[in-house]
Amino acid sequence: MTSPSSTTIGIMPTTFGVAGGPRQAPEHPDFRSGPIRFSRHIVRFLTRADQLGALLPKDVTLRGEPMAQFHFFCLRDIPWLAGRGYNILSLMIPVTHAGSGAETDGVFCAVMWENMGDPIITGREQLGHPKLAAQLPDPRRWKDETHIRASWEHFTFAEMDLACNETAAADVVADFSSSVAAGIIAHKYIPRSGQWDVADADYLTLSPVPGLSNTRDPQPAPTVKQGTGSIRFNIPQWQDMPTQYHIVQKLAALEQLSTLDALAMEGTTYLDFTEQKILT
Amino acid sequence: MTSPSSTTIGIMPTTFGVAGGPRQAPEHPDFRSGPIRFSRHIVRFLTRADQLGALLPKDVTLRGEPMAQFHFFCLRDIPWLAGRGYNILSLMIPVTHAGSGAETDGVFCAVMWENMGDPIITGREQLGHPKLAAQLPDPRRWKDETHIRASWEHFTFAEMDLACNETAAADVVADFSSSVAAGIIAHKYIPRSGQWDVADADYLTLSPVPGLSNTRDPQPAPTVKQGTGSIRFNIPQWQDMPTQYHIVQKLAALEQLSTLDALAMEGTTYLDFTEQKILT
Amino acid sequence: MTSPSSTTIGIMPTTFGVAGGPRQAPEHPDFRSGPIRFSRHIVRFLTRADQLGALLPKDVTLRGEPMAQFHFFCLRDIPWLAGRGYNILSLMIPVTHAGSGAETDGVFCAVMWENMGDPIITGREQLGHPKLAAQLPDPRRWKDETHIRASWEHFTFAEMDLACNETAAADVVADFSSSVAAGIIAHKYIPRSGQWDVADADYLTLSPVPGLSNTRDPQPAPTVKQGTGSIRFNIPQWQDMPTQYHIVQKLAALEQLSTLDALAMEGTTYLDFTEQKILT
Amino acid sequence: MTSPSSTTIGIMPTTFGVAGGPRQAPEHPDFRSGPIRFSRHIVRFLTRADQLGALLPKDVTLRGEPMAQFHFFCLRDIPWLAGRGYNILSLMIPVTHAGSGAETDGVFCAVMWENMGDPIITGREQLGHPKLAAQLPDPRRWKDETHIRASWEHFTFAEMDLACNETAAADVVADFSSSVAAGIIAHKYIPRSGQWDVADADYLTLSPVPGLSNTRDPQPAPTVKQGTGSIRFNIPQWQDMPTQYHIVQKLAALEQLSTLDALAMEGTTYLDFTEQKILT
Repeated sequence: MTSPSSTTIGIMPTTFGVAGGPRQAPEHPDFRSGPIRFSRHIVRFLTRADQLGALLPKDVTLRGEPMAQFHFFCLRDIPWLAGRGYNILSLMIPVTHAGSGAETDGVFCAVMWENMGDPIITGREQLGHPKLAAQLPDPRRWKDETHIRASWEHFTFAEMDLACNETAAADVVADFSSSVAAGIIAHKYIPRSGQWDVADADYLTLSPVPGLSNTRDPQPAPTVKQGTGSIRFNIPQWQDMPTQYHIVQKLAALEQLSTLDALAMEGTTYLDFTEQKILT
Repeated sequence: MTSPSSTTIGIMPTTFGVAGGPRQAPEHPDFRSGPIRFSRHIVRFLTRADQLGALLPKDVTLRGEPMAQFHFFCLRDIPWLAGRGYNILSLMIPVTHAGSGAETDGVFCAVMWENMGDPIITGREQLGHPKLAAQLPDPRRWKDETHIRASWEHFTFAEMDLACNETAAADVVADFSSSVAAGIIAHKYIPRSGQWDVADADYLTLSPVPGLSNTRDPQPAPTVKQGTGSIRFNIPQWQDMPTQYHIVQKLAALEQLSTLDALAMEGTTYLDFTEQKILT
Repeated sequence: MTSPSSTTIGIMPTTFGVAGGPRQAPEHPDFRSGPIRFSRHIVRFLTRADQLGALLPKDVTLRGEPMAQFHFFCLRDIPWLAGRGYNILSLMIPVTHAGSGAETDGVFCAVMWENMGDPIITGREQLGHPKLAAQLPDPRRWKDETHIRASWEHFTFAEMDLACNETAAADVVADFSSSVAAGIIAHKYIPRSGQWDVADADYLTLSPVPGLSNTRDPQPAPTVKQGTGSIRFNIPQWQDMPTQYHIVQKLAALEQLSTLDALAMEGTTYLDFTEQKILT
Repeated sequence: MTSPSSTTIGIMPTTFGVAGGPRQAPEHPDFRSGPIRFSRHIVRFLTRADQLGALLPKDVTLRGEPMAQFHFFCLRDIPWLAGRGYNILSLMIPVTHAGSGAETDGVFCAVMWENMGDPIITGREQLGHPKLAAQLPDPRRWKDETHIRASWEHFTFAEMDLACNETAAADVVADFSSSVAAGIIAHKYIPRSGQWDVADADYLTLSPVPGLSNTRDPQPAPTVKQGTGSIRFNIPQWQDMPTQYHIVQKLAALEQLSTLDALAMEGTTYLDFTEQKILT
């Protein structure tokens, strides 16, 4: 198997040479490419179009009923981390992008939290994924229920509870896959240093799902369980989360009109998004 | 006192509105601008020009004798974090920048570690500072010595020991200040999504020291103690620090030809770098 | 200065020889005895005698009005930890002990949380102090207020807020000192292995305040500020804190009839309690 | 299934009522008894009888060749922690106890580290297991090797590496089981408060393996892999681990004369040791 990329991707600090990363295999004999092991818990609800639409950037609109999907990923055995792993909480919204190019269906990633610095840095700067740092302990399972908590400096801002114990129906899995469509759409934005109202980067990216690496080395379909699940947010004041309170306040305000089936998946996959592209 | 910036600085996630940050006062009644309280431990040594010069980007050259400065900062009472704080370890090198514009003397920041996600994100994307995540516990003081350790995921890569118990001589303080000169020079680099060999940003930034906020609201001179101090690096293999081993290996390889006085400072300051500029 | 104790105090593991601890100086040239640096935040309220009295062991009764004192200590520069420190949250209740011996006035320590394993172990086994493990981050100070949080595995069970900005009146300090009286009373209990309804230790201890070490090496009076302060508890379910929920539920249920002045202290002291005794 | 114990086991703090624990089911409808899920990595070497024998208490002698076993356990789905888990590193030594009663073969637990406060407290006070607190991150697996690290406050004192990828031979498993024999022998020691040279408890305990709960609800045999494995210790100075340096120094000094097969196990079990007894 070849390395994730034959192109060198620059990253700060720049003067020490190339750094290994999710799209950059290190030139080291201990490295080996391969899939990531994951578990993924998803809760979904329908909400008000005005509230959810307000979280979309220009040229992106809601697709189908206004649906908020909260995903909690545990990634393990990650090659570029020499086998380590980390956890992710993200909000995904089924959308359509219509710009100057072809229309694209996908899920817009409005915000994403991770509990490790390295993927936050590469994900923001390379992919334009809106990653923030948080404490995301492993899910706790007890009596057929799964409990998930997300905190920032001892303020617990999100609590997800799921009970997914039945094999998912084929149509539920198909529906979910179709909600992802072409992949993850995100708004990359990097300000220009010193000229704070100008941007070094200000565009939408598409991270294709399944990616090229998955096509090259097909992984078995993940196991998918379905059941019930919900998320609630504790409303932070500015002092509780001074850099993120405005985000959590908006998530807490989303009216949960009806809850959809929750999903729990386990499997292996590639998540390198090497063939990412800019949407125009 | 006015807010750090009257310009809105965009940051990911973008669609939730403006986020408070070091150069962006939140519009919240609990916020109050003001200086940061800091302690700073500095060890310095002369090293080989070829080794240190190899860590400099284009247009930047060593100024004076080839000197590596390792700074360990503890920042506290930070307004944009509602009074929280964090720690920093950085390598600074006295340099001159000579490009198409005027010559600038400063210190080149080759690499910087921090133990909090929020300033890593804003520092990289807004300032171009090469910040990485690490565990940086508060210094331990025992019997007139200060012990500092930096780790990444249970691999302790740097150990600094200082004994700074005498009031610093005026010329030592002046020498140190002149080493900083106009401020911190860094190489901002952000790759373009999907076009991995192209850059969204690829330029040098100057973060002026003392900044405008310090000039507007002058703080008392910090207390400065001098004494002895040294740093040593534990050499990681790829598996120990897969994204950073190449950095620490180069720091460990720097020949420590002669150790200079170490310094320990305490005081208050502003570190917002709002009037940052791009060096050309 | 002599070591804290000339007697060897056994501790598990036993077969590696004597372990250094708060009442046991290591035989090592780097060790040096000396006072601990501390800050201490205290909130106090009057509550119902029936509720507070229910938290007292046999032979111990409320002294004066039924008063709950919650203390948050930050200990630093601790000699037996080679200069490290840790934090404490405890509930103290002014009481009188009347057993077969002389009457003793003191404060009963109903429960105590600490954020480091070593003092929890020595404190429980040697002193009989009812110490439990928790996350106790350093207090956050912002705009003349101090905010304190205590968590167990991402469940924040206590939140203390204080605004103590006036020099404490002499009578307030005197009142507080008299509430402590002879020192800390605790109920030591160790079950007998395998005979679970029998005890290896089941008695009350008195940890004298100020201790002998303070008398030998008198420290300056601490600075004391007074103001307002309160504590509130988030009620855990069994799953949130399976080993401690019953404790926090009872603290949350304490009716806060009237709040007394809060106190904030800073200073140096000895806390070795070497001359502890058993109350009979 | 009945609760682990129908006897009430007292524990500090005492006045809030009974606390749930490994041998004490809470009276709560969410609780459910059941086995623990575990992984276990074991490295073993033969060492000098004089060095290993020096780590044994009175009446306990080496059994067979002088063998040091280092066990790293990951426990998960623990009922008394509502599904949470924790990790353990311990040194076990095959021994025979010969006191006034019958001879007992077992493994002597010389020292044990855990990364959670609650089981440290109950294990020491109820079982007499010599548990200390440490940072014990989950094992990292990479390219058929498993890497384990143990740290105390940013000093990494032990590193275990294993490559166990072959199904264990029946005789290796049988040998290992026979090394455990009747169970875990430990030296419980609790000093008497204020009379520091007197003990509240000073006796040997036997924690039977497999325990009664395993006999009542037999679990499938664990999967066992064998291969190679080793442990090395980084020698701490007093300042690095002021309460534990003497322990790690002795472990580091153990001459590793010959390395035995390493083992990796996965399965489910009960570890409540409710029917523990005192050895006389």
